[in-house]
Amino acid sequence: MVNYEPNFSNIAKNMKRSEIRELLKLTAKPGIISFAGGLPAPDLFPIDDIKEMSRIVMEREGKTALQYGPTEGDNRLREELAKLMQKDGVQVTGNHILIVTSSQQGLDLTGKIFIDPGDVVMTSRPTYVGAIQAFNSYGAKMIGIEQDDEGTQTALLEAEIEKLVIKGVKPKFIYEIPDFQNPSGITMSLKRRKELMRIAEKHDLIVIEDSPYRQLRFEGKTEPSLMAMNPERVLGLYTFSKILLPGFRLGWMVGPNELIQKAVTAKQSVDLCSPPFNQAILYEYLNRGLLEKQIAIITKAYREKRDFMLEKLSQYMPKLPGLKWTQPHGGLFLWVTMPESIDAGEMFHSAIEKKVAYVVGTAFYPDGGGRNAFRMNFSYSSLTEIEEGVKRLAGVITNWKAGQDTSIITP
Amino acid sequence: MVNYEPNFSNIAKNMKRSEIRELLKLTAKPGIISFAGGLPAPDLFPIDDIKEMSRIVMEREGKTALQYGPTEGDNRLREELAKLMQKDGVQVTGNHILIVTSSQQGLDLTGKIFIDPGDVVMTSRPTYVGAIQAFNSYGAKMIGIEQDDEGTQTALLEAEIEKLVIKGVKPKFIYEIPDFQNPSGITMSLKRRKELMRIAEKHDLIVIEDSPYRQLRFEGKTEPSLMAMNPERVLGLYTFSKILLPGFRLGWMVGPNELIQKAVTAKQSVDLCSPPFNQAILYEYLNRGLLEKQIAIITKAYREKRDFMLEKLSQYMPKLPGLKWTQPHGGLFLWVTMPESIDAGEMFHSAIEKKVAYVVGTAFYPDGGGRNAFRMNFSYSSLTEIEEGVKRLAGVITNWKAGQDTSIITP
Repeated sequence: MVNYEPNFSNIAKNMKRSEIRELLKLTAKPGIISFAGGLPAPDLFPIDDIKEMSRIVMEREGKTALQYGPTEGDNRLREELAKLMQKDGVQVTGNHILIVTSSQQGLDLTGKIFIDPGDVVMTSRPTYVGAIQAFNSYGAKMIGIEQDDEGTQTALLEAEIEKLVIKGVKPKFIYEIPDFQNPSGITMSLKRRKELMRIAEKHDLIVIEDSPYRQLRFEGKTEPSLMAMNPERVLGLYTFSKILLPGFRLGWMVGPNELIQKAVTAKQSVDLCSPPFNQAILYEYLNRGLLEKQIAIITKAYREKRDFMLEKLSQYMPKLPGLKWTQPHGGLFLWVTMPESIDAGEMFHSAIEKKVAYVVGTAFYPDGGGRNAFRMNFSYSSLTEIEEGVKRLAGVITNWKAGQDTSIITP
Repeated sequence: MVNYEPNFSNIAKNMKRSEIRELLKLTAKPGIISFAGGLPAPDLFPIDDIKEMSRIVMEREGKTALQYGPTEGDNRLREELAKLMQKDGVQVTGNHILIVTSSQQGLDLTGKIFIDPGDVVMTSRPTYVGAIQAFNSYGAKMIGIEQDDEGTQTALLEAEIEKLVIKGVKPKFIYEIPDFQNPSGITMSLKRRKELMRIAEKHDLIVIEDSPYRQLRFEGKTEPSLMAMNPERVLGLYTFSKILLPGFRLGWMVGPNELIQKAVTAKQSVDLCSPPFNQAILYEYLNRGLLEKQIAIITKAYREKRDFMLEKLSQYMPKLPGLKWTQPHGGLFLWVTMPESIDAGEMFHSAIEKKVAYVVGTAFYPDGGGRNAFRMNFSYSSLTEIEEGVKRLAGVITNWKAGQDTSIITP
């Protein structure tokens, strides 16, 4: 028997499989209504269009679409994405865009180009589990800043950065998901956005703006992206996964030329280029103006699902002090906070028994916390499933709470 | 102006863009016959089959093909690849296989799970430039071992490892491309394979067997893969890029369960999963037995091109002492060594002027060397281009040598 362990890198030795991924396996059991995954609704995938675009690409440019492509990505697709960014108030050209193999690769490249083991990174708290994993894999020390209804509390952020400065430590970047954050569903207010950028400028910090859901707004005014506020300081991560489909594993990174060039060099050693075949299909799709129509379809459907889930939560959830949930204005997720006495991780197995699933809050905390919270996805399940799932979940919480109270009464 | 430099990681600060990639840009000029890239022949891509498989996948399983998939890969494709490996004498199941986003990602994951900065890795010399880049990006110290006609000189390898052992250093792994090596085209003899595995066992080392070309044998007996000789010690990297098409960016990693599991965990933070759409298409393609037919077509065509290139090299190259080239039994490349006085890097610009391109030897040396050598690809160009390109190259070498001699005569 070979003992492989001593051969592993320090990071590999400490690498843990994502809690979210391990739990997702449990949620795949038949009959379970899962609010756990971050999956888009497959019923809305534009299958016929993709089939048609695939045919066109194969007939017109099979020899280039099946060959290696430039690391930067398909130039035509980069130009289409630059137009998309311009419409959102960011003045960039295709040269500012790097096509990546999913925005998870964007996070990995971000880690690769910025983080040395022990480097400090500022995040909100909670924050996206995939970012925690990616930054952890480069040995980052993440400092999480509490959110409220307006997003990351920038006063706390500034205080924390100033504490670091006194210690001679400068964070490598601030990581933010300003729109319909994963996991909380919270959108950063304009005031906070301005504050965040002021802090970044004052302390000469780079901001990573992770933006998978920005186009999926159900209501209210679109706030400017952080990148639109200061394109020199912001590296943006975008993906087709939520606004179109995840099965192509394509996203894009956009930012100052020097950062994009560094990411290109890093990408050369990571996968040389993202699949030219898939890029050519998406170029064709975007060039025909189909993406905007698709986003409108998705937004309408997800809004209906969110409304329905909020309605059912109000209807079925027990009236417990401390039990509350966010009211997201877009995206895929909402966040439930329970009374402090209820541990969402302990309760999870009880939920699985009752055939309903969520993601426990601790998965989204880079530095502890979230024990009494969980994330719910509303994009994947049907309305019927949402009603039945919320009913089950309400029952699980009610019983759990009752069990706790009983145990206090009967020692 | 923001100064980004201080924010970069140590590795990013030292990151250089691949010499091969920068030079490839020069070779893209119109009229240049390029033997530089490692591109498969696009005329042989099975475009109609891929178009048809895409249609079938979209019609039958669009909702799953366009959704997220498991990190490990499409189980049906993993089973097909296990069968392929079994036919090659490696007794594995689908569980031993991880689908990766190109074998370059296999190299990156290998770096991630094994290499801490400063760790020693044994390679041959020359070796694949993409592996040098990937291992460099984790801070590896590569020690290259000279090759001869039988491949890596295992006696030198053992001596080097023993020197390290005395210093208390144990290499993290031995990296090898035993079949039709990139860049040399050399295939490791059975005796050397046995020696390599004996050394690996004696010193308790893991072997990374990079095998992009193994199925492309033109002549001679297929030697057992290193993995077939000792599946416990070998992590294999395979890709569809050379045997089918690179445009899907799909490959596979195969090895002991513990190593595959570690790579799966690493891949979660890198891109979550490889594109399910592309995997479903390739499953369909493999399941119909089309890959074996395609490999037969490619092998026949590349053999003809190799024969022709060897013939033209003999016909046109000047008779210079020290000018020689390898006679590969398969793959995509051969390796030209020139008299020591000729620097392939200096001569490169003269070659570009004469509208012919190669990759300078130094790109393939992790630790210096290769100045008077270059790599030639024979898979991409047509027969007409091969003849014309070799003729131009012979002219460039002849003139360069004449220029040198003149400069000696006329001071």
